[in-house]
Amino acid sequence: MSVIKIDTTDQHIINLAAIVGGQRSILYKKADLLAYDCDGFTIHKHLPKAVVFPKNTEEVSKLVKYCSNHSLPFLARGAGTGLSGGAIPVNGEVIISMVRMKRLISVDLENRRAVVEPGFVNLKLTNSISDRGYYYAPDPSSQYCCTIGGNVAENAGGAHCLKYGVTTNHILGLEVVLPNGEIIEVGRNGVLDEPGYDLLGLLTGSEGTLGIVTKITVRILKTPEGKQTVLAYFDKVQDGSQAVSDIISAGIVPAALEMMDKTAIEAVEAAAFPVGHPKDIEAVLLIEVDGIAAGIEEQIDEILEVCRVNKVREVRAAKDEAERGRWWANRKTGFGAMGAISPDYLVQDGVIPRSRLPEVLKKIAQISENSGLRIANIFHAGDGNLHPLVLFDARKPGEIDKALEAGSLCLKACTDAGGTITGEHGVGIEKREEMRFVFKEEEILAQIKIREVFNPNNLLNAGKLFPTPGRCVEIKKEANAK
Amino acid sequence: MSVIKIDTTDQHIINLAAIVGGQRSILYKKADLLAYDCDGFTIHKHLPKAVVFPKNTEEVSKLVKYCSNHSLPFLARGAGTGLSGGAIPVNGEVIISMVRMKRLISVDLENRRAVVEPGFVNLKLTNSISDRGYYYAPDPSSQYCCTIGGNVAENAGGAHCLKYGVTTNHILGLEVVLPNGEIIEVGRNGVLDEPGYDLLGLLTGSEGTLGIVTKITVRILKTPEGKQTVLAYFDKVQDGSQAVSDIISAGIVPAALEMMDKTAIEAVEAAAFPVGHPKDIEAVLLIEVDGIAAGIEEQIDEILEVCRVNKVREVRAAKDEAERGRWWANRKTGFGAMGAISPDYLVQDGVIPRSRLPEVLKKIAQISENSGLRIANIFHAGDGNLHPLVLFDARKPGEIDKALEAGSLCLKACTDAGGTITGEHGVGIEKREEMRFVFKEEEILAQIKIREVFNPNNLLNAGKLFPTPGRCVEIKKEANAK
Repeated sequence: MSVIKIDTTDQHIINLAAIVGGQRSILYKKADLLAYDCDGFTIHKHLPKAVVFPKNTEEVSKLVKYCSNHSLPFLARGAGTGLSGGAIPVNGEVIISMVRMKRLISVDLENRRAVVEPGFVNLKLTNSISDRGYYYAPDPSSQYCCTIGGNVAENAGGAHCLKYGVTTNHILGLEVVLPNGEIIEVGRNGVLDEPGYDLLGLLTGSEGTLGIVTKITVRILKTPEGKQTVLAYFDKVQDGSQAVSDIISAGIVPAALEMMDKTAIEAVEAAAFPVGHPKDIEAVLLIEVDGIAAGIEEQIDEILEVCRVNKVREVRAAKDEAERGRWWANRKTGFGAMGAISPDYLVQDGVIPRSRLPEVLKKIAQISENSGLRIANIFHAGDGNLHPLVLFDARKPGEIDKALEAGSLCLKACTDAGGTITGEHGVGIEKREEMRFVFKEEEILAQIKIREVFNPNNLLNAGKLFPTPGRCVEIKKEANAK
Repeated sequence: MSVIKIDTTDQHIINLAAIVGGQRSILYKKADLLAYDCDGFTIHKHLPKAVVFPKNTEEVSKLVKYCSNHSLPFLARGAGTGLSGGAIPVNGEVIISMVRMKRLISVDLENRRAVVEPGFVNLKLTNSISDRGYYYAPDPSSQYCCTIGGNVAENAGGAHCLKYGVTTNHILGLEVVLPNGEIIEVGRNGVLDEPGYDLLGLLTGSEGTLGIVTKITVRILKTPEGKQTVLAYFDKVQDGSQAVSDIISAGIVPAALEMMDKTAIEAVEAAAFPVGHPKDIEAVLLIEVDGIAAGIEEQIDEILEVCRVNKVREVRAAKDEAERGRWWANRKTGFGAMGAISPDYLVQDGVIPRSRLPEVLKKIAQISENSGLRIANIFHAGDGNLHPLVLFDARKPGEIDKALEAGSLCLKACTDAGGTITGEHGVGIEKREEMRFVFKEEEILAQIKIREVFNPNNLLNAGKLFPTPGRCVEIKKEANAK
């Protein structure tokens, strides 16, 4: 054991520090821990017991064994950009930060795969291989700083998941430290159909409740030969929605098909990357097509035509890569842009069948009116993944609760329309109760039983993903009584 | 309870018959049961106790409850075309046949999905929607008769899964009867990222061991605007393999990229759909490209060029749809064609990284030589999914075992090359022991524990997917002793 200078008498801190090699690899003082009391979901804050920074899988395994043996709650954290509170230490967890495990281990162009450590930043992967003509498809708006490990935990999406799917569609293999410290591998060299049960799919998107991912094999794609982006302004949101449906019905699969509404436009135009959207329109669409160069122009022409048929006020293709970049910067910083028009905001993440967009947007407008809170909408229209942004002022008494209630009602509107409560942000602590909008008790119970297979003592990231613990116990009791 | 005329004193048969509405919905006489003693994997045969034909989910649930309450082993069966023995009643199961639950329940073109009952035949779905410009992508060679329920159980693939993925990539929702008779739904209206654990992925491909699927929501795709197919003959298998790698490296994603070797060519040319392949070549490639019409020709030109660079003897595109159809009929009936050159054959289903094709094919040739059995290769070269067909004569003493051993060695060659033991046929009873080539004991144990969550008494399709029961018990004991 290395010599440690730790200014505490807490034996757990001393022992954890010893595992990771000393005081530079652990935080335990309150002033340091404050930076870890929440993630991108900032409404609930809790201090961790400590934050440790392992350098490799073996250290992760030792940390996990130590925590398990001493009944210390623990959880893993990447860049902390998650939007549903999955990395918040609600039980005063020991946070195992993966940010020092950030190597790009290997790139295998011939078989189209790369192996990364979980702390490797999403966008860095594309940047590392783009000169050879390859990229990594999942592109959450936080991709310049979020980690691929965190993306795996939350099954992150992004603007381009309409065509390319979410994270789980790009994960070929995982090395995972189970809550007992055992190290397992799932997924073997990128095969489509692993034998046995689909543990790879099960672990991906399990929000850090089944194990800690320590190595990730991802699929990489050839950079599309051509790419073009169209911006379209609609006076009526109904016309914009119809254009979305018509584009898809025409057999075009855009790489991305994004929409922002009037309130969102007000925000992005007041923030860091304005592009001059007119302020009196109800909807702007950002439509991107990619693929074989020869097919791009034909698809763009068809998209322009669909927009015109649907009474577009103005529509045009990007004149160059710089303009395309500006449009995307405007869209991708949209959530943060809310800061320009509101002291606080809560982003929701519901999914609906594409065909029911107009109806659900109308319901959301009604929820806004009833709550007295403005709601902006920035969303992946092509796959029906809505992001209502509830604007509020936390300093006003009762507004946090009002915002949470409005967010929950937006999700109810989604599930009532045959949709669900998350498209890419996960459940975390934010939407635990809303899981009941989607699942029957037996279905929640089946999931809790699966958690118990991996995480029997529930020391790893407890209190996430499922309805409140008390209620879970009730569910179990009822089930056992049957 | 309806009046039943059942010619048996077996009270279970009488009671099961009553659930499904009488004697026309149950088979229980030995002569009738013989047709159900195996599936497409014909080496092991076992008689079921009975075969029942429910008409709806409620009847399935009642049958399952009856079997569970009376400790009768049971399993579900579709068309019985599975190739790894997943539907073989090794414990004298009650077979719940899904062939009467064969309705196309609904088609929703706007949201690109269809709902079918499990007994609905794969190809019928495409046939039902092709006039409106849509199709269902997964296309196992047995698609003219296999059921979508069976496809879900085995996570079936097909020639076009190189571009479109396997069954799990096209399943949006399932209604499932659990082994206790409860009915659950997983997947909600086709969202990309269902909240909670990915039960949809877990159930898909679980080979009938976790529940019985009674309703399936599938993704349907727009029929590609254009399609073209190329046939290429190579004197050397090495050159054909290199062409496969080079096509993919060129950034082309063919819809299908199939290879047959010399022995396979001999068989398909001697069978029902010969197309005049030269008999002195080592490899024929069948390469299909689809998508936006404008991009097809450019890709075909590039493919022709890659083939020429790799010393192709002859290469050409199909001159019309009729020729394209003949080429595919020749390929898709390839397994059965073995009957023209051998009394029996055993098809294997290994996966390897594409880049290691030449090396593994060489190893398979060596296995063939050592065993004294011919091995033909017909396979999905683009995604490295090999199908070695071991030719043997079951009448010769010891040849069945020799064939099984050669098949197992082929799989070992795949896993030694960083691959795995099944790409699309499943594990069933055939590859239970080979699961050890891929998984550590802890990893198998984790899967068995997941089975216990759903199927605690292991009455549903026991003895499949995992190493032999005795050994599993040992694994469990060891684990518990730790």
